Amino acid sequence: MQLHLIIHILGFLLIFLSGAMLLPIPFSIYYGESDYIYFLITAFITFLIGLIAFKMTRFDREVRAREGFAIVTLGWTMFSLLGCLPFILSGYIPSFTDAFFETMSGFTTTGATILVDIQKLPHGLLFWRSFTHWLGGMGIIVLSLAILPFLGVGGMQLFKAEVPGPVPDKLTPRVTETAKILWGVYIVISLTETIFLMFGGMSLFDALCHTFGTMATGGFSTKNASIGYYQSPYIEYVIIVFMIIAGTNFSLHYRLLRGDFKAHRKNNELLLFIGLIGGATIFIGYDTFFHHYPELEVAFRKTLFQVTSIITTTGYGTADYEQWAFSSQFILFLFMFIGGCAGSTGGGMKVIRLYVLIKFVRAEVRRLLHPSAVIPIRVGHTVIPREIVTNVLGFLALLTGLFITGVILMSVLGLDLESSFGAVAATLGNIGPGLGSVGPTDNYAHIPVLGKWVLTFFMLAGRLEIYTVLILFAPSFWKK
Amino acid sequence: MQLHLIIHILGFLLIFLSGAMLLPIPFSIYYGESDYIYFLITAFITFLIGLIAFKMTRFDREVRAREGFAIVTLGWTMFSLLGCLPFILSGYIPSFTDAFFETMSGFTTTGATILVDIQKLPHGLLFWRSFTHWLGGMGIIVLSLAILPFLGVGGMQLFKAEVPGPVPDKLTPRVTETAKILWGVYIVISLTETIFLMFGGMSLFDALCHTFGTMATGGFSTKNASIGYYQSPYIEYVIIVFMIIAGTNFSLHYRLLRGDFKAHRKNNELLLFIGLIGGATIFIGYDTFFHHYPELEVAFRKTLFQVTSIITTTGYGTADYEQWAFSSQFILFLFMFIGGCAGSTGGGMKVIRLYVLIKFVRAEVRRLLHPSAVIPIRVGHTVIPREIVTNVLGFLALLTGLFITGVILMSVLGLDLESSFGAVAATLGNIGPGLGSVGPTDNYAHIPVLGKWVLTFFMLAGRLEIYTVLILFAPSFWKK
Repeated sequence: MQLHLIIHILGFLLIFLSGAMLLPIPFSIYYGESDYIYFLITAFITFLIGLIAFKMTRFDREVRAREGFAIVTLGWTMFSLLGCLPFILSGYIPSFTDAFFETMSGFTTTGATILVDIQKLPHGLLFWRSFTHWLGGMGIIVLSLAILPFLGVGGMQLFKAEVPGPVPDKLTPRVTETAKILWGVYIVISLTETIFLMFGGMSLFDALCHTFGTMATGGFSTKNASIGYYQSPYIEYVIIVFMIIAGTNFSLHYRLLRGDFKAHRKNNELLLFIGLIGGATIFIGYDTFFHHYPELEVAFRKTLFQVTSIITTTGYGTADYEQWAFSSQFILFLFMFIGGCAGSTGGGMKVIRLYVLIKFVRAEVRRLLHPSAVIPIRVGHTVIPREIVTNVLGFLALLTGLFITGVILMSVLGLDLESSFGAVAATLGNIGPGLGSVGPTDNYAHIPVLGKWVLTFFMLAGRLEIYTVLILFAPSFWKK
Repeated sequence: MQLHLIIHILGFLLIFLSGAMLLPIPFSIYYGESDYIYFLITAFITFLIGLIAFKMTRFDREVRAREGFAIVTLGWTMFSLLGCLPFILSGYIPSFTDAFFETMSGFTTTGATILVDIQKLPHGLLFWRSFTHWLGGMGIIVLSLAILPFLGVGGMQLFKAEVPGPVPDKLTPRVTETAKILWGVYIVISLTETIFLMFGGMSLFDALCHTFGTMATGGFSTKNASIGYYQSPYIEYVIIVFMIIAGTNFSLHYRLLRGDFKAHRKNNELLLFIGLIGGATIFIGYDTFFHHYPELEVAFRKTLFQVTSIITTTGYGTADYEQWAFSSQFILFLFMFIGGCAGSTGGGMKVIRLYVLIKFVRAEVRRLLHPSAVIPIRVGHTVIPREIVTNVLGFLALLTGLFITGVILMSVLGLDLESSFGAVAATLGNIGPGLGSVGPTDNYAHIPVLGKWVLTFFMLAGRLEIYTVLILFAPSFWKK
């Protein structure tokens, strides 16, 4: 373990972050508010820390997997530690616990909030809050991948540790190129959504903030009523479409932009993803149409929006799904675990893991009938190596273990079982709103301090595919 | 698939069942009640069907695994179909759905009841109800293993399909011998418990019925208030001890009876089992002592009883655990899934599978640090073959899948989420009482008819280790 190497790269990343912290300033000034001062202070502090770390250490060897894991986890933690300063300094979120929770929720693209009245915040802070999503969702990943190699870091191990999902679709052999391409795709789609939202009557500010929340599958809104505030079917449909895009493997979008119109259609994971959304919309829509929204279009839209918002782990809301049938709530609860496709900004276990799991169970049942047969597990035409299958199963076991631990901790802290289930699922899956007292019309303000720290850890572990974070707790990880 | 072979063996088993149906008669006559007549009728019908099936078919070849699976699942179903007749004929459970539910609950050692007032039943029916537990828990398994070989059936495949748990500890190379030995151990321990319970003031009748419920980890009682009726710490402790014995691998008891005093101590599964009971008793006891039972001994006893009752999947009650803290309820809910040791009469996933799962996850995390290392998974000194590990993982995935499907179905039928979770977990794990509207002070009478059939299926699937039942639904299973 080369600690100086980790510090060196973290230093570089902080210098980059300090630049990003200047972006809310124009909005603060435009709206005639004074919160820009806190961004100046924070950016200065961040720059200073970054510079010291960068200058006091040297980059003298390749980054190995171990350092990669440490950089990813510590990077996210440092970003949240410094990113929460404007909230504290401005006094809008005076508690450090709350501010750190909110910022980690941003960078991990969770979207869980401790704010009771979001609209009270000045525009600079609102912008920063949403911008942490955009940076976190894919920005930081891609930026790290694009800039680290510029320092001569062959960061394929980082790619392995950081790109969500077990099967990163290699776009190009060189990571630098990959990172730049994905970044380009991300920006192009983000700009497109911003324009579409402005056509629906949103201001540039709101359109940008909601684009950040959609594209990162984050879910922070600038309004207390989330997307429901706009009462606009057009805006809801636009956000549905872009949530699905954000929940899809970005390498497919890259191929589409390059003229390969068949890539999406041949992708098994995407087909399952769309199938799940469609199936759940029909299933839940049956209930919402007959019991909540007498108009078919409204029932369809509200249901599709909520299903998409949950499975992509965005967490935007246009309806209080806790009023819906128990079976509908349970489906949404399950979808919190599934999440988006691998290579998307969505959280959760990823659709590809569900796909592999289904195939695995089928193969196991078949093996009982034909004990001597060798039954390969395929995704499309590709046979999945055994190690990847066991890795998927191990991941799911860890996810279940963390979920159970979380529910025990939250219920010990006094939450009822429904709220414990909801809070843990919603943070571990990076959704945001959960069930019970942290449902779509509630927030996380009332959670005890210790519980907020537990949930903050879950956001991080969930976002970084669990292994990446847990491995730092293995004693042998830190041995030479 | 040799259908005539299956019918032949089922016929033989029914002839045996018809004999068992005569056992409640002395109790009915002793208590001067008239329900003995229904047992005479039922035994006659069962004998007739069994005889016809047995005589019309011939035993002309070895039983293969496929036939083994079919015999096990169909056997349990036939036993429940015929075993429910006394309840229907006597008019005490007039609905076929209810009577079948109750009898399947008996034979699968679940202990879930649709009866609102148990004490209203005459003694013959009460005895039969509890006796189905005893037969089901291990009786039928052992009987089938002891008697089928007498017919020349080399039934090792049945052993594989029927003995709970992934690692049957081979006592002797010959299955016939194994079966007889296990049966002997089962009877000896059962008699011991009956005597101990009678010392506590129970009548022979009550002592027998509660022994059946304990030794089979079933949970049917002859009293509405279950074990709580007796208000006797002595009886509670006796039942705690025998629940733990029933939840332990019977081959260990056999070794102990043969003078091997070290077998229990060296068994990793048992150590984890005892550790889980101890840990949960301390954890939950902290809550019950400070919030429910000011006397330490009472808090300890009530907690230990409930923890043991749930993890062994017995389901006897001395307290309403739904009054306890949410965290305590959640621990008990988790224990519904764990169940007893392999080779015990307990249901659930079995402690050994949890053990393998924990080892597997640790190995996966270690593999991330040492990608090229081969990390074996051991139980004690034995390396578990890969196929058994994947079989365990596949089992857990199937269990999870069934659980999710069950909760969706029950919530569609109108149960709230807590009750759906509780009802499915309690039937799939063969516990009996669950949570919510099917909690320890409630019963299953109010579940819609369709829901009762779903839960009946779950009892069967849970009892027969899922694979055994699900495999019958694979189209290729029935092909020549």
